[in-house]
Formats: sequence, C-alpha cells, structure tokens
Amino acid sequence: MYIYTKYRFMKFLLPIFLLLSFSNIKAQADSTFIRYIYDLALENGEAYENLRSLCKDIGARVTGSAEAEMAVKWGEKLLKSYNFDKVYLQEIQVPHWERGTTEAAWIENEKGDILKLNILALGGSIGTNGLISGEVIEVKNVDALKLLNPNEIKDKIVFLSEAFNQKHINTFSAYGYCYPLRGDGANEASKLGAKAVVIRSLATPTDNHPHTGVTHFDKDVNKIPAAAMSTQNADMVSKWIKQGKVTLKMEMDCKVFPDVTSYNVIAEITGKDKKIITLGGHLDSWDVGEGAHDDGAGIVHSIEALRILKTLNYKPNHTIRCVLFMNEENGNFGGKSYAKLAKEANEEHICAIESDRGGFLPIGFDVVENTNHLELVKQYENLLFDYDLLKFKNGHGGVDIGPLKEYYPEMMQLGMAINSQEYFNYHHSEADVFEVVNKRELELGAAAMSTMVYLMDITLD
Amino acid sequence: MYIYTKYRFMKFLLPIFLLLSFSNIKAQADSTFIRYIYDLALENGEAYENLRSLCKDIGARVTGSAEAEMAVKWGEKLLKSYNFDKVYLQEIQVPHWERGTTEAAWIENEKGDILKLNILALGGSIGTNGLISGEVIEVKNVDALKLLNPNEIKDKIVFLSEAFNQKHINTFSAYGYCYPLRGDGANEASKLGAKAVVIRSLATPTDNHPHTGVTHFDKDVNKIPAAAMSTQNADMVSKWIKQGKVTLKMEMDCKVFPDVTSYNVIAEITGKDKKIITLGGHLDSWDVGEGAHDDGAGIVHSIEALRILKTLNYKPNHTIRCVLFMNEENGNFGGKSYAKLAKEANEEHICAIESDRGGFLPIGFDVVENTNHLELVKQYENLLFDYDLLKFKNGHGGVDIGPLKEYYPEMMQLGMAINSQEYFNYHHSEADVFEVVNKRELELGAAAMSTMVYLMDITLD
Ligand SMILES: [Zn+2]
Ligand SMILES: [Zn+2]
Repeated sequence: MYIYTKYRFMKFLLPIFLLLSFSNIKAQADSTFIRYIYDLALENGEAYENLRSLCKDIGARVTGSAEAEMAVKWGEKLLKSYNFDKVYLQEIQVPHWERGTTEAAWIENEKGDILKLNILALGGSIGTNGLISGEVIEVKNVDALKLLNPNEIKDKIVFLSEAFNQKHINTFSAYGYCYPLRGDGANEASKLGAKAVVIRSLATPTDNHPHTGVTHFDKDVNKIPAAAMSTQNADMVSKWIKQGKVTLKMEMDCKVFPDVTSYNVIAEITGKDKKIITLGGHLDSWDVGEGAHDDGAGIVHSIEALRILKTLNYKPNHTIRCVLFMNEENGNFGGKSYAKLAKEANEEHICAIESDRGGFLPIGFDVVENTNHLELVKQYENLLFDYDLLKFKNGHGGVDIGPLKEYYPEMMQLGMAINSQEYFNYHHSEADVFEVVNKRELELGAAAMSTMVYLMDITLD
Repeated sequence: MYIYTKYRFMKFLLPIFLLLSFSNIKAQADSTFIRYIYDLALENGEAYENLRSLCKDIGARVTGSAEAEMAVKWGEKLLKSYNFDKVYLQEIQVPHWERGTTEAAWIENEKGDILKLNILALGGSIGTNGLISGEVIEVKNVDALKLLNPNEIKDKIVFLSEAFNQKHINTFSAYGYCYPLRGDGANEASKLGAKAVVIRSLATPTDNHPHTGVTHFDKDVNKIPAAAMSTQNADMVSKWIKQGKVTLKMEMDCKVFPDVTSYNVIAEITGKDKKIITLGGHLDSWDVGEGAHDDGAGIVHSIEALRILKTLNYKPNHTIRCVLFMNEENGNFGGKSYAKLAKEANEEHICAIESDRGGFLPIGFDVVENTNHLELVKQYENLLFDYDLLKFKNGHGGVDIGPLKEYYPEMMQLGMAINSQEYFNYHHSEADVFEVVNKRELELGAAAMSTMVYLMDITLD
C-alpha cells in the first residue's frame, strides 16, 4: 500500500531496471532541496545550541526525576516556539529509580591491601542496606555463570569480567556481545544465590570512569545489588584474584520507587494524507553526565530535522511526526506506549526513523529487514554520496520505534548509522557531556535525518 | 604495464563485465587476509603507542629544528626494530625557519581601548625588528586585495578576514578556498606596499587559538611580517573596524636561517620484482602542539601498515616502501627530493599511497585522476564495505607523493580519505596533541593503509 508502487511492480526486474533507468528514479528526488537542507543545518543550524541548552540548562534526566520533567517542559516549549502544526504531550506511566547518595566499594586481599573501586549502581539495582562484604568470584560472562553450581556462588559477590572484543569494526557489535553482563548478570547470579554482582563496565577503552545502564530481574527472582566498575578497576580486580582470595565491600543506597506519570513530547507537520512518518530519539538519559550523545543528540537531530523541513516550507505527503520518547533507558515505556496508543487510535504508520547512536559523523542508515525496504533506500545512494552518507544495509532501527513494528509489521524502520568508534567511551557515564560533541558532526546528523524523512515522504505511497 | 591486465583488456566492456563476473574479480583478493590485517591492528596494534612516543617523547618537530632531527633518529630506530629488509636515510637539503621567543599583538581604537590578540607568526615570515604599528585595513581575501590600489595599502597592516564556508561537507574544501589568505596574502600585500599582514586563522570553528602554516614570497618581493590570529579574535577585529579606525601593534622575532641537511627515513619489504609501491606521511610538523593529527597519524599509519604486512609474513609482488617524508610543511623538499632521486636511480614506481589528513575515522580513498585507476580500486568496494571503507572517488593523493607523478605520469596515486569534520579544529595549532586522537580510529587508519597496499600489490602488474 505504502510502498513505492513503480518499484513493486518491477520487483523481479530490479537489477536491470536499476541499471537502465537509474536517472529516472533519481529524478523524483530534488537534489537542490537536499542541498538546501544541508546549507540550513550547517550555516544556520540550531541543533548545537539546543543541545547545549538541554545538557547545561537541565543536564542528566533519568526517568522519574525532576530533571526528566524539566526536559518534558523544555521539549514542549522548544517545539512550540517553532510553530509546528501540532505540539502535544502523550501521557505515559514510567518506572522511577534513584541512585541515592552513597556509592562506595573496595577490594581487600588476605594481606590486608585495599583498592578503592570507582563504581556506579546499575539502574534497577536495590541498595545494600549498609556495608556488605563477600568473597569475589570472577566469571567471564553470563553463559559461563549459568554453568556453575549454586554452591560455588552462594553468598559470594560475582564479578563478570568480559571485555569488549576490539576486533568488531562497529563498537555496537562488541557492546551487543557484552550486553548480558549488565542486562542479565544480576538476575542469573541471584538465581544461584549470589549476594551481589559487580561487572566490568560496558566500554570500549580502558579508562577510569564506570558506565551504568539498566539491569533486569525476572518477576520471581530476588533483587540483589548490582554495580559497574571502571574498566581499569576491572583489570586490577582480575589481577588481584589471580594472586589469591579477594573480598569486596560495597555500600549503595539506590532504590526503586513506585511508577510515576511522565510524557512523550510530540510535534507534527500535517501531511496531505493521514499516514504517518515518525522520527525521534529519547529524551531521558542516565543520571550521570549530561546525556549528550545518549541521546541528547538524537533529540536535537529530530527537532532540527523537522525545523528544517518547516523552514524550507516543505509540504509533506504524509504527516511528519517528531517524537521525544521518554524512558528508553529503563523500560522503554515511551516507545511501548506510543505504539499501543497509535494502534488504538487507528493511525496508519508507514515509516519510523530513529537517531540513538550519538552525535558523531553520520555514515548512512540501517534498514530493518524487509523484502524491499533496503532497495527503496539504496536507490538514493548516488544522491547521498556527496554528503558522505555511504552505508545502507539491513540492521537495527531503534529501541523507541521498535514496538511500532509489532502493530505495523509492514512499515519501514530506519536507524541512523553513525561513526561508532567513540560512543562507548562516553555512554552512560559522567563523560557524556556537551563538550564531547562536535558541532558540525551534530549538524550533519540533523541534515541526514531531515533528508531521509524527505526521501521517504516522497518515496512511500 | 603495471595496470591490472585483465581489466585493461576488458575496458570498454566494464559495466557488463563487473555485473557478470564480479565474484570472479573479487576472488583474487583474500578476504581472510584483510580480516587478519584488521585483527592485528585492533587487538595488538602499535600505532597508538608509537604516536604517543612521537608526540610526547619528541613533540613538535618543525623542519630544521633539533626536534626534527630527533624525529629522524626516532623513525630510523623504530623501523630498524621491526627488522624490515632495508632501513635507511635519504639525505636532503631543507629550509630552516624559527619562531623566536617574542610574539605579541594588540589592537587600539581612537578611544584608546585595547584588545590583546592571540597570534602565531606564519612559517617563512620575517620578524618585526621591534614593535611595529599601522592602521588596519580589512580585506576579505587575496582576490579582493589584488583589486586595490597601492595608495590604499601603503604602510598599512592588511587584515585578511575570510571565514571558512561552513556549507562545504568536506572541510578540506573550505580550507582550499581560504588557503590563499595564508599562502599568498603577505606576498600580494607586500607588492602593494603593506607593512605587515595578519589573517584570520584557517580553522573550522570559532575558537581562541591561532593556526600557523606556511606563507610564500616570490623571489623579487620584499618579505614582510605575517601572522595568524584566532578566529574569535578575527571576529572582534572586524567588529572594531566597523566602529572606526583601528591600529594594530605587533612584535615578532621569527627568522629565516640558511638551509640545513635533513633526511627522509625509509624502510622496505623487498618484492619479487623491482617495481615500487610507496606509502607514507610526513615526519615534520609545525612548531606548536605535537603534530599529532598533522601528520604524526600518517607516520604511524604508514609504519604500522608495513609492520602488519611483515608480521603476517606477506611476500609482496613489488617492493613495499614506507617513507617518512621530511619538510612537507614548508617547502616539500622531502617529497621533491624523493621523486628526483627515484628517477635518477631509474626506479620503477607504480603506486604511492599517502596519509596526511589526520588520525580520524578513515572512510575511503581518493584516487588521482587517470582513465582507469578509480575503477581498479572500486572493484574492491564490496570487500571493503564491512570495514566502513565506503568512499572511493577521484581526488587528491598527497603533497609528499605528488612530485613522483611528474616523473611517473602513469603511476597510481591514492590519498586516504578520513572524516574531515574536526581536522581544522587542531591543524597547525597548539591543540594538535596526542590526547585528541582516538585509539581505534587511528588503528583503523593503519589497517586501511595496510589493506590498500596489499590490494594494489596484487592488482598492479
Ligand atoms: Zn540511547
Ligand atoms: Zn600535513
């Protein structure tokens, strides 16, 4: 229905068709309009100043915090200032977890040597209720943990130590392999009777700040304290363990609170028909640093992409809807609620594009696998070459837009692909601040989002 | 002679040939070997530690300085430690310019307000011989300057103020447009009787450190003092000039000394035939910062590329020669001498690959225009896609390898294309230090160089 009709008709003739009439297809897209998009983003862009404001005037904004609510107001006010056709809040229920004020840990060996560790409680962890102590058992990862007997683990503190595999070209791939350490380690260790879990931070480099992130417990599993230590600390703990018995002491007073009300923040340019193209990122962040790359960048990319289309007086075929999703980090209730409410309202969603991989150089788009969606994007390869948008492949769309796919299995989903090399230096840590974002790379991301929204608006029926 | 024979034969059939037998062509390159190159660079790479050493154990190394000679020794020692088939120095004559110890400037208006400027003498500038003073005349660029009458310029200090055009996607393109401000501004202003020249730094962002670089004088033109101010200062000077008459005072004691002897540093893996593939970057830098991106990165890229091939026990068809060129920055006598000596020795050069665009993410290769060279590289596009090497186009090779082309017009020349967005934040300034280089991006650059040397070695006859 909403796919490029001519293409569908010629599906089985595609290679020869592309070869013979490429200029024909391309002619549908206005290359001058794309040049205007980039000129506006690079010469009179507002993405960088908007990111400065989000990072410095508000800062970290974990779901359920006062800062998260400030960010909702900030987003609503900013979107209203651009005079889009509609700006509104979408009410949702979200979890509320707080770090508390105490977070400390050290290791001791049998000689009485001590080493302070730099730790951060994982989101969803319970507190320790005072100082706790336990022998450390090092386990590489969750697969190895599952092979152990409860008597090897009971009352111990499990240290999950697998490092990022540096051989992966894309660091998100290395992150994916290590993800269970953080996401599922405490859950599995608790099943075996562990007292607590500490993990090596999910980070690319060897550095000295811990990286937090969500940890998950099954409903019937006792929650236990879980924290990340810096990668430097993790190397030291491994070294000490090789030399003899190591005891870990830790204290944290983080806490899970009852769910609260929050909001997705939404703006639209009304289309000629009622079909919807969503673009977005997530407004919440973790509670350390400033959430600049994760995902302040995606927020200002999306707002700027819509602002550019409006400024250029673009009249879309379909409604272009920018969504600042709440609560991606620990529950994804923004994304889940958005999809459910869309279905309940009988909306027709044809495409969603997410930016949640930082404010670095955009290099292309990942297309969620579907028989023809990748080819629909690749027809514009030559047009995008000069803008260094070069990589189009099947891949991941985005966490926030993911739930839409359950209700609209035929819709197109795209994730902006961004140079990933430095992302996990900053991710979920105190280092993710405005200053580590490059102005032009951020602006190129906004222009790339705006361009892809434009191209899909003219391509999809 | 040295081009890929099968390809040449099929030249006019190329599109259909690529379509029908692409897998055939690709089969010549061993994708497993490329994977080994990347694994070695990313897991057991030495590029980052080598760059640390060059930047921190030596630092800035302008041609003719003691540090430049240290860098020659450093390069020779490092290359010898890798047990290449040959390591030797190539003696050359190079210019010798020194900054001196005094560098100061300020502007004054008629009310007596003063503003200190952050300046750096341009390389090749003469000193002021004490404090000089002159009315400032702002001119946008050299083209505008050439339209003025000598009586508008005589005894004045010319301020060339054109800013980078932010609309260029590649910042090297914006740099190219502004290059005459620095390269030719003092020369042209002197012809019109100017007392001195100050320029807006050739830099992408608005920041507060000046960026130096070479300035050139024709033989019959009187040398005059020339300096760059920070882009922030340039904005202020323009603002003051709009409000009334502005006087600039400056003092610099930089100096041109007689030429001295220096060296290109060379290492080789001997090939099965006598044809030569050169890879390299330049060992000299400017005298501020640490020359980390420009061009410490290119130096360690090239050394590491050769080390990887040796470590993997690769037996090349042609001699692979790594050259650490001296004096790219102010005269290019390393590159010019290398080419001349090659010709005099009757060497047969078939390919040269340069890295001189920083240690950022590599995105592809520029191929110096020639009827078939770009297609020779593009046949490997699919193979390189997974390594995020995505952009292959006709373009610039490199300053150091450029002179070879005069003697070997048929040879292939490649310049590694690198994410350019941040390069001119650091270029030729105190900000170009080791800390602003990302380890993995540097390693990916080394792997890309090694891979392209391998591919051209198996491709070129
Ligand atoms: Zn995120
Ligand atoms: Zn250079």
